[in-house]
Amino acid sequence: MPHALAYSAKSPTAPLTSFSIERRSPGQLDVAIEILFCGVCHSDLHTARNEWENTIYPSVPGHEIVGRVTAVGDLVSKFKVGDIVGVGCMVDSCQHCKPCADGLEQYCENGFTGTYNGPEQGTGANTYGGYSSHIVVRESFILRVSHAENDLAAVAPLLCAGITTYSPLRQWKVGPGQKVGIVGLGGLGHMGVKIAAALGAHVVLFTTSANKRADALRLGAKEVVVSKNAEEMAAHAGSFDFILNTVAAPHNLDAFLVLLKLDGTMTLVGAPASPHPSPGVFNLIMKRRRLAGSLIGGIRETQEMLDFCAQHGIVSDIESIRMDEIETAYERMLKSDVKYRFVVDMATLKN
Amino acid sequence: MPHALAYSAKSPTAPLTSFSIERRSPGQLDVAIEILFCGVCHSDLHTARNEWENTIYPSVPGHEIVGRVTAVGDLVSKFKVGDIVGVGCMVDSCQHCKPCADGLEQYCENGFTGTYNGPEQGTGANTYGGYSSHIVVRESFILRVSHAENDLAAVAPLLCAGITTYSPLRQWKVGPGQKVGIVGLGGLGHMGVKIAAALGAHVVLFTTSANKRADALRLGAKEVVVSKNAEEMAAHAGSFDFILNTVAAPHNLDAFLVLLKLDGTMTLVGAPASPHPSPGVFNLIMKRRRLAGSLIGGIRETQEMLDFCAQHGIVSDIESIRMDEIETAYERMLKSDVKYRFVVDMATLKN
Repeated sequence: MPHALAYSAKSPTAPLTSFSIERRSPGQLDVAIEILFCGVCHSDLHTARNEWENTIYPSVPGHEIVGRVTAVGDLVSKFKVGDIVGVGCMVDSCQHCKPCADGLEQYCENGFTGTYNGPEQGTGANTYGGYSSHIVVRESFILRVSHAENDLAAVAPLLCAGITTYSPLRQWKVGPGQKVGIVGLGGLGHMGVKIAAALGAHVVLFTTSANKRADALRLGAKEVVVSKNAEEMAAHAGSFDFILNTVAAPHNLDAFLVLLKLDGTMTLVGAPASPHPSPGVFNLIMKRRRLAGSLIGGIRETQEMLDFCAQHGIVSDIESIRMDEIETAYERMLKSDVKYRFVVDMATLKN
Repeated sequence: MPHALAYSAKSPTAPLTSFSIERRSPGQLDVAIEILFCGVCHSDLHTARNEWENTIYPSVPGHEIVGRVTAVGDLVSKFKVGDIVGVGCMVDSCQHCKPCADGLEQYCENGFTGTYNGPEQGTGANTYGGYSSHIVVRESFILRVSHAENDLAAVAPLLCAGITTYSPLRQWKVGPGQKVGIVGLGGLGHMGVKIAAALGAHVVLFTTSANKRADALRLGAKEVVVSKNAEEMAAHAGSFDFILNTVAAPHNLDAFLVLLKLDGTMTLVGAPASPHPSPGVFNLIMKRRRLAGSLIGGIRETQEMLDFCAQHGIVSDIESIRMDEIETAYERMLKSDVKYRFVVDMATLKN
């Protein structure tokens, strides 16, 4: 068993610290990866602090991974040593249910294996994520990265924030001629704006902070609406084909549902810790609107997203941090004080 | 202006009584109808008693109308004197917006004209519904009835309860090989069971009353689940393609959302007076489920529904009442004491 250096949480209250973990020896279908960059997702913080009450300690978060292949198993055909690759939120799934067969591993009926907090297929062991020097992952859960070398840090967040927004935008066929709303300009929302704009939609960014206007326009939005301003909101009533709502804090969904046109859909990708106020059924009935959910994306679609982003020059807007700055980064994330994703330069783990 | 005999509410608290109304003289595009039967919808009661706080008095409810054509305007081409026809929830719409052009008059961007409680296009006058001897309606809102003559009373509820359930079942492409849930066995629910079964789906009826089991099976359900029984419910987790929820009383939507499979939809056709408990976002996200609404159906689809029902021998299960029994009928409806729709024999209005 090869050792790897990592950063882990040992309890809900202890700060993350350096930790040595064991990775499995690469099997015939496995790829071993030296991790170069790892994005910092809000899920990392939830898990490190056991806010979802399912954390197995020690916990090594991180599921926005970009790295370089260091070894491949005998039966690996798609990757070779030296390739630049990505790993997202999943490292395995049952591979035999219908969703898995359909390339929708995120909806695996037997439960996919998270990149961290497991359980590993077969052994049930806890999995350790991207806050580490190396990882071993089966070939079928590895993505090819074709962005330029100096973009790699900013590619890392595509593996979670990117696919989480890309998948519902594709699922609901967002494209040219459509008016699309993105609610919230954080890690997810800023990717949603970039991707929806690249898909050709007329993008409107909804934010509670008027001071995000210039940034939203720079990222690709054509309009910015301050959602606290009832008059600004009313001007858009019944006009949206699709709204992607990235806000996990409980808020009034009706304020956005009424902005959808006939047969419009609002997809939620954030799950609040306490429920949103109950949405009005009348708003759904009167224009045959839909309220939907979406969870990351499958491996095939994640590859499609990475290729799409490379083609359109899309990466995340990031702030690079050292591994030992992770607690400070978490505190800043809690205040939404990040534009728009922290990414750990994993070279700093060794220092 | 021809006079018509009607039954009307004069205030939220007064019982409905006999009343003389004026109908417009048929214009070139109008059809005059002698009303034979009128179904009793819960909306009638809401309106008579001003429970939606928008009732214009005097109010003549009734929007499940079957009658015989007595006169047609010069430009009417589809109907002739003596034809048996139906009128549903709408008697007009703007006829120039996109939904109207698409045959979705129920979603008219300028507001359709309700069969009762108006407002009439152009004049803004209050409209009077089917609790009356005659009605004058423009040709394009009149439906052809091809059921047998002795079924006509039981056809009346198809004009609201029938189309309200048919439209979402068609919208979400319910058919053979699908497992479809119908929540609630009332006026809407019993039509939902019949229509979904005729569309070829495996129909499961959800009810809070175990004593409705035999009736549900008779109507076409293959299984009946008592929704208060957590064990019965759990056995169906993640297995439904579509659920049509006809219950307007506030209830736990999550109990049904978790029964949907990947990409499954639950459509609500009842709007509760106070909100449902807020549905869990997690249930939407984890299987990319959708919560939707639906409002009656367009004229083209209502004709399709009537033809489908005639072809499959589908009518409503009804209790025939006299016009002067309407208040008793309302009271029994409030106790869900009707199998499954009251229909007024309008011949009793003249007595």
